[in-house]
Amino acid sequence: MAENIADNITSKGERAIGENVVLIGKKPAMNYVLAVVTQFNGGAKNVKVRARGNAISRAVDVAEIARHRFVTDARVGTIEIGSEELSNEDGTTSKVSSIEITLSK
Amino acid sequence: MAENIADNITSKGERAIGENVVLIGKKPAMNYVLAVVTQFNGGAKNVKVRARGNAISRAVDVAEIARHRFVTDARVGTIEIGSEELSNEDGTTSKVSSIEITLSK
Repeated sequence: MAENIADNITSKGERAIGENVVLIGKKPAMNYVLAVVTQFNGGAKNVKVRARGNAISRAVDVAEIARHRFVTDARVGTIEIGSEELSNEDGTTSKVSSIEITLSK
Repeated sequence: MAENIADNITSKGERAIGENVVLIGKKPAMNYVLAVVTQFNGGAKNVKVRARGNAISRAVDVAEIARHRFVTDARVGTIEIGSEELSNEDGTTSKVSSIEITLSK
Protein backbone atom coordinates (compact mmCIF):
# COMPACT_ATOMS: atom_id res chain seq x y z
CA MET A 1 0.00 0.00 0.00
CA ALA A 2 2.83 2.32 0.80
CA GLU A 3 4.09 2.09 -2.76
CA ASN A 4 0.72 2.90 -4.21
CA ILE A 5 0.39 5.99 -2.11
CA ALA A 6 3.86 7.13 -3.09
CA ASP A 7 3.00 6.61 -6.75
CA ASN A 8 -0.05 8.77 -6.41
CA ILE A 9 1.66 11.78 -4.93
CA THR A 10 2.53 14.66 -7.17
CA SER A 11 5.40 17.00 -6.49
CA LYS A 12 3.08 19.07 -4.33
CA GLY A 13 1.58 16.02 -2.65
CA GLU A 14 -1.90 17.34 -3.18
CA ARG A 15 -3.52 15.22 -5.85
CA ALA A 16 -3.84 11.55 -6.57
CA ILE A 17 -3.59 10.00 -9.99
CA GLY A 18 -5.41 6.79 -9.12
CA GLU A 19 -9.14 6.60 -9.65
CA ASN A 20 -11.46 7.25 -6.74
CA VAL A 21 -8.66 8.43 -4.51
CA VAL A 22 -8.49 11.88 -2.97
CA LEU A 23 -5.11 12.65 -1.47
CA ILE A 24 -5.32 15.32 1.21
CA GLY A 25 -2.74 18.11 1.23
CA LYS A 26 -2.50 21.56 2.74
CA LYS A 27 -5.37 23.28 1.00
CA PRO A 28 -8.63 24.08 2.82
CA ALA A 29 -10.77 21.02 3.53
CA MET A 30 -13.58 22.17 1.24
CA ASN A 31 -11.32 21.79 -1.81
CA TYR A 32 -11.01 18.09 -1.08
CA VAL A 33 -14.68 17.74 -0.14
CA LEU A 34 -15.49 19.01 -3.62
CA ALA A 35 -13.18 16.36 -5.09
CA VAL A 36 -14.94 13.62 -3.12
CA VAL A 37 -18.40 14.85 -4.12
CA THR A 38 -17.33 15.07 -7.77
CA GLN A 39 -16.16 11.46 -7.76
CA PHE A 40 -19.42 10.23 -6.24
CA ASN A 41 -21.44 12.29 -8.71
CA GLY A 42 -19.37 10.74 -11.50
CA GLY A 43 -20.66 7.32 -10.51
CA ALA A 44 -18.02 6.12 -8.06
CA LYS A 45 -19.31 3.68 -5.45
CA ASN A 46 -16.23 4.03 -3.26
CA VAL A 47 -13.95 6.98 -2.68
CA LYS A 48 -10.74 6.64 -0.69
CA VAL A 49 -9.53 9.65 1.28
CA ARG A 50 -5.81 9.39 1.98
CA ALA A 51 -3.48 11.56 4.02
CA ARG A 52 -0.14 11.53 5.77
CA GLY A 53 1.25 13.41 8.75
CA ASN A 54 -0.52 16.57 9.81
CA ALA A 55 -3.01 16.27 6.95
CA ILE A 56 -4.60 13.28 8.71
CA SER A 57 -6.84 15.57 10.77
CA ARG A 58 -8.00 17.25 7.59
CA ALA A 59 -8.76 13.88 6.01
CA VAL A 60 -11.19 13.12 8.83
CA ASP A 61 -12.75 16.57 8.40
CA VAL A 62 -13.17 15.94 4.67
CA ALA A 63 -14.81 12.55 5.21
CA GLU A 64 -17.15 13.93 7.86
CA ILE A 65 -18.18 17.02 5.88
CA ALA A 66 -18.67 15.02 2.68
CA ARG A 67 -20.90 12.37 4.21
CA HIS A 68 -22.91 14.59 6.54
CA ARG A 69 -23.48 17.56 4.27
CA PHE A 70 -23.15 16.53 0.62
CA VAL A 71 -23.28 12.77 0.05
CA THR A 72 -25.68 11.82 2.82
CA ASP A 73 -26.12 8.27 1.54
CA ALA A 74 -22.39 7.58 1.86
CA ARG A 75 -21.13 5.76 4.90
CA VAL A 76 -17.68 5.20 6.34
CA GLY A 77 -16.32 1.84 5.26
CA THR A 78 -12.89 0.67 6.34
CA ILE A 79 -10.41 3.00 7.98
CA GLU A 80 -6.76 1.95 7.86
CA ILE A 81 -3.80 3.53 9.56
CA GLY A 82 -0.15 2.84 8.85
CA SER A 83 3.36 4.19 8.82
CA GLU A 84 5.51 5.16 5.87
CA GLU A 85 9.17 6.04 5.57
CA LEU A 86 10.00 9.28 3.87
CA SER A 87 13.45 10.17 2.57
CA ASN A 88 14.63 13.56 3.68
CA GLU A 89 16.79 15.80 1.54
CA ASP A 90 19.84 15.10 3.69
CA GLY A 91 19.59 11.37 3.05
CA THR A 92 18.04 10.44 6.38
CA THR A 93 14.61 8.87 6.62
CA SER A 94 11.74 9.72 8.92
CA LYS A 95 8.56 7.85 9.65
CA VAL A 96 5.20 9.42 9.08
CA SER A 97 1.75 8.10 9.89
CA SER A 98 -0.91 7.68 7.24
CA ILE A 99 -4.64 7.10 7.06
CA GLU A 100 -6.99 5.81 4.41
CA ILE A 101 -10.72 6.34 4.90
CA THR A 102 -13.01 4.56 2.43
CA LEU A 103 -16.40 6.18 1.87
CA SER A 104 -18.99 3.91 0.24
CA LYS A 105 -22.43 4.46 -1.19
CA MET B 1 -20.51 8.65 22.46
CA ALA B 2 -20.15 12.41 22.28
CA GLU B 3 -21.31 12.73 25.86
CA ASN B 4 -18.86 10.16 27.08
CA ILE B 5 -15.98 11.93 25.45
CA ALA B 6 -17.06 15.25 26.90
CA ASP B 7 -17.24 13.67 30.36
CA ASN B 8 -13.70 12.46 30.05
CA ILE B 9 -12.15 15.77 29.12
CA THR B 10 -10.42 17.75 31.80
CA SER B 11 -10.10 21.50 31.66
CA LYS B 12 -6.91 21.05 29.70
CA GLY B 13 -8.43 18.39 27.48
CA GLU B 14 -5.38 16.20 27.90
CA ARG B 15 -6.40 13.33 30.12
CA ALA B 16 -9.28 10.94 30.29
CA ILE B 17 -10.88 9.74 33.48
CA GLY B 18 -12.38 6.59 31.99
CA GLU B 19 -10.43 3.38 32.17
CA ASN B 20 -8.31 2.31 29.22
CA VAL B 21 -8.81 5.58 27.40
CA VAL B 22 -5.98 7.88 26.40
CA LEU B 23 -7.19 11.27 25.28
CA ILE B 24 -4.70 12.99 23.01
CA GLY B 25 -3.91 16.67 23.58
CA LYS B 26 -1.12 19.00 22.62
CA LYS B 27 1.81 17.37 24.36
CA PRO B 28 4.47 15.44 22.44
CA ALA B 29 3.25 12.09 21.12
CA MET B 30 5.63 10.11 23.35
CA ASN B 31 3.80 11.31 26.47
CA TYR B 32 0.67 9.59 25.24
CA VAL B 33 2.56 6.54 23.98
CA LEU B 34 3.80 6.10 27.54
CA ALA B 35 0.21 6.27 28.79
CA VAL B 36 -0.86 3.59 26.31
CA VAL B 37 2.05 1.32 27.21
CA THR B 38 1.34 1.79 30.92
CA GLN B 39 -2.26 0.72 30.48
CA PHE B 40 -1.29 -2.41 28.56
CA ASN B 41 1.37 -3.26 31.14
CA GLY B 42 -1.28 -2.85 33.84
CA GLY B 43 -3.25 -5.68 32.26
CA ALA B 44 -5.55 -3.86 29.87
CA LYS B 45 -6.63 -5.90 26.85
CA ASN B 46 -7.94 -2.87 24.96
CA VAL B 47 -6.83 0.72 25.00
CA LYS B 48 -8.79 3.43 23.23
CA VAL B 49 -6.89 6.39 21.81
CA ARG B 50 -9.19 9.38 21.37
CA ALA B 51 -8.61 12.79 19.83
CA ARG B 52 -10.41 15.76 18.35
CA GLY B 53 -9.46 18.35 15.78
CA ASN B 54 -5.79 18.85 15.06
CA ALA B 55 -4.82 16.24 17.64
CA ILE B 56 -6.20 13.51 15.37
CA SER B 57 -2.90 13.27 13.50
CA ARG B 58 -1.09 12.81 16.80
CA ALA B 59 -3.53 10.07 17.81
CA VAL B 60 -2.55 8.07 14.73
CA ASP B 61 1.14 8.68 15.54
CA VAL B 62 0.58 7.44 19.09
CA ALA B 63 -1.19 4.28 17.96
CA GLU B 64 1.46 3.53 15.36
CA ILE B 65 4.43 4.15 17.68
CA ALA B 66 2.85 2.16 20.51
CA ARG B 67 2.09 -0.92 18.45
CA HIS B 68 5.24 -0.99 16.32
CA ARG B 69 7.80 -0.09 18.94
CA PHE B 70 6.49 -0.92 22.41
CA VAL B 71 3.47 -3.25 22.44
CA THR B 72 4.29 -5.32 19.40
CA ASP B 73 1.55 -7.87 20.09
CA ALA B 74 -1.12 -5.18 19.97
CA ARG B 75 -3.12 -4.74 16.80
CA VAL B 76 -5.45 -2.04 15.57
CA GLY B 77 -9.06 -2.96 16.25
CA THR B 78 -11.88 -0.67 15.27
CA ILE B 79 -11.30 2.90 14.18
CA GLU B 80 -14.25 5.26 14.43
CA ILE B 81 -14.54 8.81 13.19
CA GLY B 82 -17.24 11.29 14.07
CA SER B 83 -18.18 14.92 14.55
CA GLU B 84 -18.85 16.79 17.77
CA GLU B 85 -20.25 20.22 18.46
CA LEU B 86 -18.24 22.48 20.67
CA SER B 87 -19.59 25.61 22.34
CA ASN B 88 -17.42 28.64 21.81
CA GLU B 89 -16.99 31.32 24.42
CA ASP B 90 -19.15 33.73 22.43
CA GLY B 91 -22.09 31.33 22.49
CA THR B 92 -21.71 30.04 18.96
CA THR B 93 -21.00 26.39 18.23
CA SER B 94 -18.49 24.86 15.88
CA LYS B 95 -18.13 21.32 14.65
CA VAL B 96 -14.96 19.39 15.19
CA SER B 97 -13.99 15.94 13.95
CA SER B 98 -13.02 13.17 16.30
CA ILE B 99 -11.34 9.78 16.10
CA GLU B 100 -11.23 6.75 18.37
CA ILE B 101 -8.63 4.08 17.69
CA THR B 102 -8.93 0.86 19.69
CA LEU B 103 -5.71 -1.06 20.21
CA SER B 104 -6.20 -4.69 21.29
CA LYS B 105 -3.87 -7.39 22.54
